[in-house]
Amino acid sequence: MSSLGSKWKPVIVMVINDRKLRFGQIAARIHVISRKVLTDQLREMVEDGLLIREEFKELPPRVEYTLTEKGLALLPILNLLEDWERNYETKEVLAEA
Amino acid sequence: MSSLGSKWKPVIVMVINDRKLRFGQIAARIHVISRKVLTDQLREMVEDGLLIREEFKELPPRVEYTLTEKGLALLPILNLLEDWERNYETKEVLAEA
Repeated sequence: MSSLGSKWKPVIVMVINDRKLRFGQIAARIHVISRKVLTDQLREMVEDGLLIREEFKELPPRVEYTLTEKGLALLPILNLLEDWERNYETKEVLAEA
Repeated sequence: MSSLGSKWKPVIVMVINDRKLRFGQIAARIHVISRKVLTDQLREMVEDGLLIREEFKELPPRVEYTLTEKGLALLPILNLLEDWERNYETKEVLAEA
């Protein structure tokens, strides 16, 4: 599962979802990530075929990201992972109470 | 998805599967991982409730690992992830040909 080998990539896939988002919009939705780390993650995800990067030669320059078919196919699996984690988090909290 | 935040943990879950494996058996099945890294990953996975660690006071001491209910619930999701990756790897190879 090499193309998901970071804690941020699944989060970025779920944040973008079926939308077209600019760098700043992604950064604002994952406010704990640094701009440097986000930039690196986005570049790797473009290289791995998860994201499409569109650059518009405007002033100021505009860059938009969307998920590829491969990235979109990942969404339902990540939703299952989120359900799994939420389910067992709840059980752990109840067990500690 | 914090309890899976490493590339090794999904691999370890899939290797153990429904079996009871000793440290050396896990290490032999993931031969590219160092013993130090495997030890750390296994300890974190026990802390996160993914693995049960049983220690037998024998000579030499024997330690066995099994998946918890939480770990077992992850297996079908990891299989989907593996299918997803295999599916798109094939497409990329075909596209390059």
